[in-house]
Amino acid sequence: MENQYSYSTEVEWTGERGGDLSAPDLPNLEVDAPPEFKGHEGVWTPEHLFVAAVNSCFMTTFLAIAENSKLEFVSFSADAKGMLEKLEGQGFIMTEVVLRPKLLISHARDVERAGRILQKAEKNCLISNSIKTETRLEPEVSFAGE
Amino acid sequence: MENQYSYSTEVEWTGERGGDLSAPDLPNLEVDAPPEFKGHEGVWTPEHLFVAAVNSCFMTTFLAIAENSKLEFVSFSADAKGMLEKLEGQGFIMTEVVLRPKLLISHARDVERAGRILQKAEKNCLISNSIKTETRLEPEVSFAGE
Repeated sequence: MENQYSYSTEVEWTGERGGDLSAPDLPNLEVDAPPEFKGHEGVWTPEHLFVAAVNSCFMTTFLAIAENSKLEFVSFSADAKGMLEKLEGQGFIMTEVVLRPKLLISHARDVERAGRILQKAEKNCLISNSIKTETRLEPEVSFAGE
Repeated sequence: MENQYSYSTEVEWTGERGGDLSAPDLPNLEVDAPPEFKGHEGVWTPEHLFVAAVNSCFMTTFLAIAENSKLEFVSFSADAKGMLEKLEGQGFIMTEVVLRPKLLISHARDVERAGRILQKAEKNCLISNSIKTETRLEPEVSFAGE
């Protein structure tokens, strides 16, 4: 593994507040401002992409730590809700992302350990570590009946 | 306009480091870790989503300011390149995003003003203001021949 990587995207304006988002070898994505900022419904927005970056990074970080920790689990999903707030003198800022992972583990004995691994994933996620936004974890761990 | 909005996404693990990313009313997106972190080529990653959030927010902010400023332009596109670096004691962090907008304006007389509007868009982008990552602007403004 190297100590440095780069990731590139390109956006091209298509009219009003919308554009085509592309990246080398990745599927194209239509983007727009959200409706409250003169965009349209049903299109990925900068705000959603930001929350998605945190959410997906939390998942991939969890998966890496779970693998290293040999945690056996059946399923994982996570909701993420990002709050955009207008702050005095600062304009709009993403102030908080609440992460609600649902993890189904294989063995009841791992419940506490699984909780610690989720905490560790939230702390080690490179996107969370690159943002000013607070992240808050509300985990739900259950186990497959034995 | 309200002072508070929220944006939600959900990610569901599908195997290895990959998952399905969804959000209410938005098209689904496959996500994965990048190949250097045990993912696969050709899939959107947390790192790309982060750069895309900055890139698309820069565009929508530019479009809003250009409209308010009555700047006439023909086309706009922007490359964004995000650097992920391993820092001593901090692990991997997105340290910098370089934004390279290409703006084609309608009138030569607006070249300087267009440059200021691009600067202002970079400073006012709500995603840039929510991240620790430095953003650097390398603008290219040209005008349609008159």
